[in-house]
Amino acid sequence: MPNLHDAFIEQLKDLYNAENQITEALPKMIDAASDSELREAFEHHLEETRGQIERLDRIFTDLEASPGGKKCKGMEGLLEEGEEAIREHSAGPARDALLIAGAQRVEHYEIAGYGTAVAWAEEMGHDDIADLLDETLDEESSADEKLNSIAEGGFLESGVNEAAEART
Amino acid sequence: MPNLHDAFIEQLKDLYNAENQITEALPKMIDAASDSELREAFEHHLEETRGQIERLDRIFTDLEASPGGKKCKGMEGLLEEGEEAIREHSAGPARDALLIAGAQRVEHYEIAGYGTAVAWAEEMGHDDIADLLDETLDEESSADEKLNSIAEGGFLESGVNEAAEART
Repeated sequence: MPNLHDAFIEQLKDLYNAENQITEALPKMIDAASDSELREAFEHHLEETRGQIERLDRIFTDLEASPGGKKCKGMEGLLEEGEEAIREHSAGPARDALLIAGAQRVEHYEIAGYGTAVAWAEEMGHDDIADLLDETLDEESSADEKLNSIAEGGFLESGVNEAAEART
Repeated sequence: MPNLHDAFIEQLKDLYNAENQITEALPKMIDAASDSELREAFEHHLEETRGQIERLDRIFTDLEASPGGKKCKGMEGLLEEGEEAIREHSAGPARDALLIAGAQRVEHYEIAGYGTAVAWAEEMGHDDIADLLDETLDEESSADEKLNSIAEGGFLESGVNEAAEART
Protein backbone atom coordinates (compact mmCIF):
# COMPACT_ATOMS: atom_id res chain seq x y z
CA MET A 1 0.00 0.00 0.00
CA PRO A 2 1.38 3.40 -0.89
CA ASN A 3 2.19 5.44 2.20
CA LEU A 4 1.53 9.08 2.99
CA HIS A 5 4.78 10.16 1.37
CA ASP A 6 3.66 8.69 -1.96
CA ALA A 7 0.18 10.18 -1.56
CA PHE A 8 1.83 13.56 -0.81
CA ILE A 9 3.91 13.40 -4.00
CA GLU A 10 0.73 12.57 -5.94
CA GLN A 11 -1.00 15.62 -4.46
CA LEU A 12 1.92 17.84 -5.44
CA LYS A 13 1.98 16.44 -8.99
CA ASP A 14 -1.75 17.11 -9.23
CA LEU A 15 -1.22 20.72 -8.16
CA TYR A 16 1.77 21.11 -10.47
CA ASN A 17 -0.26 19.98 -13.45
CA ALA A 18 -3.23 22.11 -12.34
CA GLU A 19 -1.03 25.24 -12.17
CA ASN A 20 0.37 24.55 -15.63
CA GLN A 21 -3.13 24.15 -17.04
CA ILE A 22 -4.05 27.47 -15.41
CA THR A 23 -1.12 29.30 -17.07
CA GLU A 24 -2.49 28.11 -20.42
CA ALA A 25 -6.09 29.09 -19.61
CA LEU A 26 -5.53 32.53 -18.10
CA PRO A 27 -4.44 34.28 -21.32
CA LYS A 28 -7.75 33.18 -22.89
CA MET A 29 -9.64 34.47 -19.86
CA ILE A 30 -7.79 37.79 -20.05
CA ASP A 31 -8.78 38.12 -23.72
CA ALA A 32 -12.39 37.21 -22.93
CA ALA A 33 -12.85 39.66 -20.03
CA SER A 34 -14.34 43.08 -20.70
CA ASP A 35 -13.98 44.69 -17.28
CA SER A 36 -10.53 46.25 -16.90
CA GLU A 37 -10.27 45.48 -13.18
CA LEU A 38 -11.05 41.83 -13.92
CA ARG A 39 -8.48 41.69 -16.71
CA GLU A 40 -5.86 43.14 -14.39
CA ALA A 41 -6.74 40.62 -11.67
CA PHE A 42 -6.27 37.78 -14.17
CA GLU A 43 -2.97 39.26 -15.40
CA HIS A 44 -1.73 39.58 -11.83
CA HIS A 45 -2.75 36.01 -11.09
CA LEU A 46 -0.93 34.73 -14.18
CA GLU A 47 2.32 36.22 -12.82
CA GLU A 48 1.56 34.78 -9.40
CA THR A 49 0.86 31.34 -10.87
CA ARG A 50 4.30 31.30 -12.52
CA GLY A 51 5.84 31.95 -9.10
CA GLN A 52 3.75 29.17 -7.60
CA ILE A 53 5.08 26.73 -10.21
CA GLU A 54 8.65 27.77 -9.29
CA ARG A 55 7.87 27.04 -5.63
CA LEU A 56 6.63 23.58 -6.58
CA ASP A 57 9.79 23.03 -8.65
CA ARG A 58 11.88 23.80 -5.56
CA ILE A 59 9.78 21.40 -3.49
CA PHE A 60 10.17 18.57 -6.03
CA THR A 61 13.93 19.16 -6.04
CA ASP A 62 13.96 19.01 -2.22
CA LEU A 63 11.98 15.78 -2.25
CA GLU A 64 14.07 14.35 -5.12
CA ALA A 65 10.88 13.65 -7.05
CA SER A 66 9.74 14.43 -10.58
CA PRO A 67 6.84 16.88 -11.06
CA GLY A 68 5.52 15.24 -14.23
CA GLY A 69 3.31 12.34 -15.13
CA LYS A 70 -0.04 13.35 -13.71
CA LYS A 71 -2.99 14.99 -15.45
CA CYS A 72 -5.22 16.92 -13.09
CA LYS A 73 -8.68 15.89 -14.28
CA GLY A 74 -10.39 18.12 -11.76
CA MET A 75 -8.74 21.24 -13.16
CA GLU A 76 -9.35 20.04 -16.71
CA GLY A 77 -13.10 19.89 -16.02
CA LEU A 78 -13.13 23.28 -14.31
CA LEU A 79 -11.33 24.94 -17.20
CA GLU A 80 -13.61 23.29 -19.76
CA GLU A 81 -16.53 24.95 -17.97
CA GLY A 82 -14.77 28.28 -18.28
CA GLU A 83 -14.24 27.75 -22.01
CA GLU A 84 -17.92 26.90 -22.37
CA ALA A 85 -18.82 30.25 -20.78
CA ILE A 86 -16.55 32.01 -23.27
CA ARG A 87 -17.95 30.11 -26.26
CA GLU A 88 -21.59 30.55 -25.29
CA HIS A 89 -21.57 34.23 -24.27
CA SER A 90 -20.40 37.23 -26.19
CA ALA A 91 -18.19 39.79 -24.47
CA GLY A 92 -19.87 41.81 -21.73
CA PRO A 93 -20.94 41.86 -18.12
CA ALA A 94 -22.74 38.48 -18.06
CA ARG A 95 -19.67 36.76 -19.53
CA ASP A 96 -17.49 38.59 -17.03
CA ALA A 97 -19.73 37.41 -14.20
CA LEU A 98 -19.42 33.82 -15.47
CA LEU A 99 -15.65 34.19 -15.84
CA ILE A 100 -15.47 35.27 -12.19
CA ALA A 101 -17.68 32.35 -11.15
CA GLY A 102 -15.39 29.94 -13.02
CA ALA A 103 -12.20 31.51 -11.69
CA GLN A 104 -13.49 31.24 -8.12
CA ARG A 105 -14.09 27.51 -8.63
CA VAL A 106 -10.48 27.27 -9.81
CA GLU A 107 -9.24 29.21 -6.76
CA HIS A 108 -11.24 26.99 -4.43
CA TYR A 109 -9.80 23.89 -6.06
CA GLU A 110 -6.38 25.21 -5.20
CA ILE A 111 -7.37 26.33 -1.71
CA ALA A 112 -8.55 22.78 -0.99
CA GLY A 113 -5.49 21.23 -2.65
CA TYR A 114 -2.87 23.41 -0.99
CA GLY A 115 -4.76 23.17 2.32
CA THR A 116 -4.36 19.38 2.16
CA ALA A 117 -0.73 19.65 1.09
CA VAL A 118 0.17 22.05 3.93
CA ALA A 119 -1.49 19.80 6.53
CA TRP A 120 0.29 16.71 5.26
CA ALA A 121 3.67 18.47 4.98
CA GLU A 122 3.36 19.62 8.60
CA GLU A 123 2.32 16.15 9.74
CA MET A 124 5.39 14.66 8.03
CA GLY A 125 7.73 17.26 9.55
CA HIS A 126 8.52 18.97 6.21
CA ASP A 127 8.38 22.42 7.80
CA ASP A 128 10.16 24.35 5.03
CA ILE A 129 7.95 22.77 2.39
CA ALA A 130 4.85 23.54 4.46
CA ASP A 131 5.94 27.20 4.61
CA LEU A 132 6.37 27.41 0.83
CA LEU A 133 2.99 25.77 0.22
CA ASP A 134 1.41 28.08 2.75
CA GLU A 135 2.67 31.13 0.83
CA THR A 136 0.84 29.84 -2.23
CA LEU A 137 -2.26 29.05 -0.18
CA ASP A 138 -2.32 32.68 1.01
CA GLU A 139 -2.03 33.93 -2.57
CA GLU A 140 -4.92 31.72 -3.70
CA SER A 141 -7.13 32.95 -0.86
CA SER A 142 -6.28 36.56 -1.70
CA ALA A 143 -7.03 35.96 -5.37
CA ASP A 144 -10.43 34.54 -4.40
CA GLU A 145 -11.16 37.53 -2.16
CA LYS A 146 -10.09 39.91 -4.91
CA LEU A 147 -12.60 38.26 -7.27
CA ASN A 148 -15.26 38.57 -4.56
CA SER A 149 -14.58 42.25 -4.27
CA ILE A 150 -14.74 42.72 -8.05
CA ALA A 151 -18.03 40.78 -8.20
CA GLU A 152 -19.64 42.12 -5.04
CA GLY A 153 -18.06 45.15 -3.42
CA GLY A 154 -17.03 46.55 -6.77
CA PHE A 155 -20.44 45.84 -8.25
CA LEU A 156 -21.60 49.41 -8.44
CA GLU A 157 -18.35 50.74 -9.78
CA SER A 158 -17.37 48.12 -12.27
CA GLY A 159 -20.99 47.23 -12.93
CA VAL A 160 -19.93 43.71 -13.87
CA ASN A 161 -23.13 42.10 -12.76
CA GLU A 162 -25.34 45.11 -12.43
CA ALA A 163 -25.11 46.04 -16.05
CA ALA A 164 -26.02 42.48 -16.94
CA GLU A 165 -29.02 42.69 -14.69
CA ALA A 166 -30.16 45.98 -16.16
CA ARG A 167 -30.79 44.14 -19.41
CA THR A 168 -33.18 41.67 -17.79
CA MET B 1 -26.38 38.45 -25.08
CA PRO B 2 -27.75 36.36 -22.21
CA ASN B 3 -28.39 38.45 -19.14
CA LEU B 4 -27.64 37.78 -15.48
CA HIS B 5 -30.91 35.93 -15.01
CA ASP B 6 -29.93 33.40 -17.69
CA ALA B 7 -26.43 33.11 -16.26
CA PHE B 8 -27.95 32.55 -12.81
CA ILE B 9 -30.15 29.70 -14.10
CA GLU B 10 -27.05 28.17 -15.72
CA GLN B 11 -25.20 28.32 -12.39
CA LEU B 12 -28.12 26.62 -10.63
CA LYS B 13 -28.33 23.89 -13.30
CA ASP B 14 -24.59 23.33 -12.88
CA LEU B 15 -25.01 22.94 -9.10
CA TYR B 16 -28.06 20.72 -9.54
CA ASN B 17 -26.16 18.36 -11.79
CA ALA B 18 -23.11 18.51 -9.49
CA GLU B 19 -25.22 17.49 -6.46
CA ASN B 20 -26.75 14.62 -8.39
CA GLN B 21 -23.30 13.39 -9.42
CA ILE B 22 -22.27 13.58 -5.75
CA THR B 23 -25.20 11.42 -4.60
CA GLU B 24 -23.97 8.77 -7.04
CA ALA B 25 -20.33 9.04 -5.95
CA LEU B 26 -20.77 9.13 -2.16
CA PRO B 27 -21.90 5.50 -1.75
CA LYS B 28 -18.67 4.40 -3.48
CA MET B 29 -16.65 6.67 -1.18
CA ILE B 30 -18.45 5.25 1.87
CA ASP B 31 -17.55 1.71 0.75
CA ALA B 32 -13.95 2.71 0.08
CA ALA B 33 -13.34 4.45 3.44
CA SER B 34 -11.79 2.47 6.29
CA ASP B 35 -12.03 5.02 9.10
CA SER B 36 -15.43 4.82 10.79
CA GLU B 37 -15.59 8.57 11.53
CA LEU B 38 -14.91 9.29 7.86
CA ARG B 39 -17.56 6.80 6.71
CA GLU B 40 -20.09 8.43 9.04
CA ALA B 41 -19.18 11.90 7.73
CA PHE B 42 -19.78 10.72 4.15
CA GLU B 43 -23.09 9.07 5.15
CA HIS B 44 -24.21 12.26 6.86
CA HIS B 45 -23.24 14.30 3.81
CA LEU B 46 -25.19 11.99 1.51
CA GLU B 47 -28.36 12.72 3.51
CA GLU B 48 -27.53 16.42 3.47
CA THR B 49 -26.96 16.39 -0.29
CA ARG B 50 -30.44 14.95 -0.86
CA GLY B 51 -31.86 17.87 1.10
CA GLN B 52 -29.78 20.30 -0.96
CA ILE B 53 -31.25 18.86 -4.16
CA GLU B 54 -34.75 19.39 -2.73
CA ARG B 55 -33.88 23.02 -2.02
CA LEU B 56 -32.74 23.45 -5.62
CA ASP B 57 -35.98 21.83 -6.83
CA ARG B 58 -37.96 24.42 -4.87
CA ILE B 59 -35.85 27.21 -6.35
CA PHE B 60 -36.37 25.97 -9.92
CA THR B 61 -40.12 25.81 -9.26
CA ASP B 62 -40.01 29.39 -7.93
CA LEU B 63 -38.13 30.57 -10.99
CA GLU B 64 -40.33 28.52 -13.34
CA ALA B 65 -37.21 26.94 -14.83
CA SER B 66 -36.17 23.36 -15.50
CA PRO B 67 -33.23 21.92 -13.52
CA GLY B 68 -32.04 19.58 -16.26
CA GLY B 69 -29.92 19.80 -19.38
CA LYS B 70 -26.51 20.68 -18.01
CA LYS B 71 -23.60 18.36 -17.26
CA CYS B 72 -21.25 19.76 -14.65
CA LYS B 73 -17.84 18.97 -16.14
CA GLY B 74 -16.00 20.41 -13.17
CA MET B 75 -17.63 17.96 -10.77
CA GLU B 76 -17.16 15.15 -13.26
CA GLY B 77 -13.40 15.75 -13.26
CA LEU B 78 -13.24 16.03 -9.47
CA LEU B 79 -15.11 12.77 -8.99
CA GLU B 80 -12.94 10.98 -11.57
CA GLU B 81 -9.93 11.94 -9.44
CA GLY B 82 -11.62 10.38 -6.41
CA GLU B 83 -12.28 7.18 -8.33
CA GLU B 84 -8.63 7.09 -9.38
CA ALA B 85 -7.62 7.25 -5.70
CA ILE B 86 -9.93 4.32 -4.95
CA ARG B 87 -8.66 2.27 -7.91
CA GLU B 88 -4.99 2.92 -7.27
CA HIS B 89 -4.90 2.45 -3.49
CA SER B 90 -6.05 -0.47 -1.40
CA ALA B 91 -8.14 0.20 1.70
CA GLY B 92 -6.32 1.91 4.55
CA PRO B 93 -5.12 5.20 5.95
CA ALA B 94 -3.42 6.52 2.78
CA ARG B 95 -6.56 5.88 0.74
CA ASP B 96 -8.64 7.53 3.48
CA ALA B 97 -6.33 10.55 3.40
CA LEU B 98 -6.76 10.78 -0.39
CA LEU B 99 -10.54 10.37 -0.07
CA ILE B 100 -10.57 13.33 2.34
CA ALA B 101 -8.39 15.36 -0.04
CA GLY B 102 -10.79 14.61 -2.90
CA ALA B 103 -13.91 15.30 -0.84
CA GLN B 104 -12.51 18.66 0.23
CA ARG B 105 -12.00 19.62 -3.41
CA VAL B 106 -15.66 18.71 -3.99
CA GLU B 107 -16.77 20.79 -0.98
CA HIS B 108 -14.74 23.75 -2.20
CA TYR B 109 -16.29 23.48 -5.66
CA GLU B 110 -19.66 23.83 -3.99
CA ILE B 111 -18.53 26.60 -1.64
CA ALA B 112 -17.41 28.61 -4.69
CA GLY B 113 -20.55 27.73 -6.66
CA TYR B 114 -23.08 28.49 -3.93
CA GLY B 115 -21.08 31.59 -2.94
CA THR B 116 -21.57 32.91 -6.47
CA ALA B 117 -25.24 31.89 -6.53
CA VAL B 118 -25.99 33.62 -3.20
CA ALA B 119 -24.28 36.84 -4.32
CA TRP B 120 -26.18 36.90 -7.62
CA ALA B 121 -29.51 36.03 -5.99
CA GLU B 122 -29.07 38.93 -3.55
CA GLU B 123 -28.05 41.29 -6.34
CA MET B 124 -31.18 40.37 -8.26
CA GLY B 125 -33.44 40.80 -5.21
CA HIS B 126 -34.31 37.09 -4.90
CA ASP B 127 -34.05 37.19 -1.11
CA ASP B 128 -35.87 33.94 -0.34
CA ILE B 129 -33.79 32.07 -2.88
CA ALA B 130 -30.61 33.63 -1.48
CA ASP B 131 -31.61 32.37 2.01
CA LEU B 132 -32.16 28.82 0.75
CA LEU B 133 -28.85 28.81 -1.11
CA ASP B 134 -27.13 30.23 1.95
CA GLU B 135 -28.39 27.30 4.06
CA THR B 136 -26.69 24.94 1.64
CA LEU B 137 -23.54 27.07 1.61
CA ASP B 138 -23.37 26.76 5.42
CA GLU B 139 -23.74 22.99 5.20
CA GLU B 140 -20.94 22.74 2.65
CA SER B 141 -18.62 24.84 4.80
CA SER B 142 -19.43 22.69 7.84
CA ALA B 143 -18.80 19.52 5.85
CA ASP B 144 -15.40 20.90 4.81
CA GLU B 145 -14.53 21.79 8.41
CA LYS B 146 -15.63 18.36 9.59
CA LEU B 147 -13.24 16.77 7.08
CA ASN B 148 -10.50 19.10 8.33
CA SER B 149 -11.09 17.96 11.86
CA ILE B 150 -11.02 14.29 10.82
CA ALA B 151 -7.79 14.85 8.85
CA GLU B 152 -6.04 17.20 11.25
CA GLY B 153 -7.51 17.56 14.73
CA GLY B 154 -8.65 13.98 14.78
CA PHE B 155 -5.30 12.81 13.43
CA LEU B 156 -4.06 11.24 16.61
CA GLU B 157 -7.32 9.53 17.42
CA SER B 158 -8.43 8.32 14.03
CA GLY B 159 -4.85 7.86 12.87
CA VAL B 160 -5.99 8.44 9.30
CA ASN B 161 -2.77 10.01 8.17
CA GLU B 162 -0.48 9.09 10.99
CA ALA B 163 -0.85 5.38 10.46
CA ALA B 164 -0.04 5.94 6.80
CA GLU B 165 3.02 7.89 7.76
CA ALA B 166 4.17 5.21 10.21
CA ARG B 167 4.65 2.88 7.25
CA THR B 168 7.04 5.24 5.50
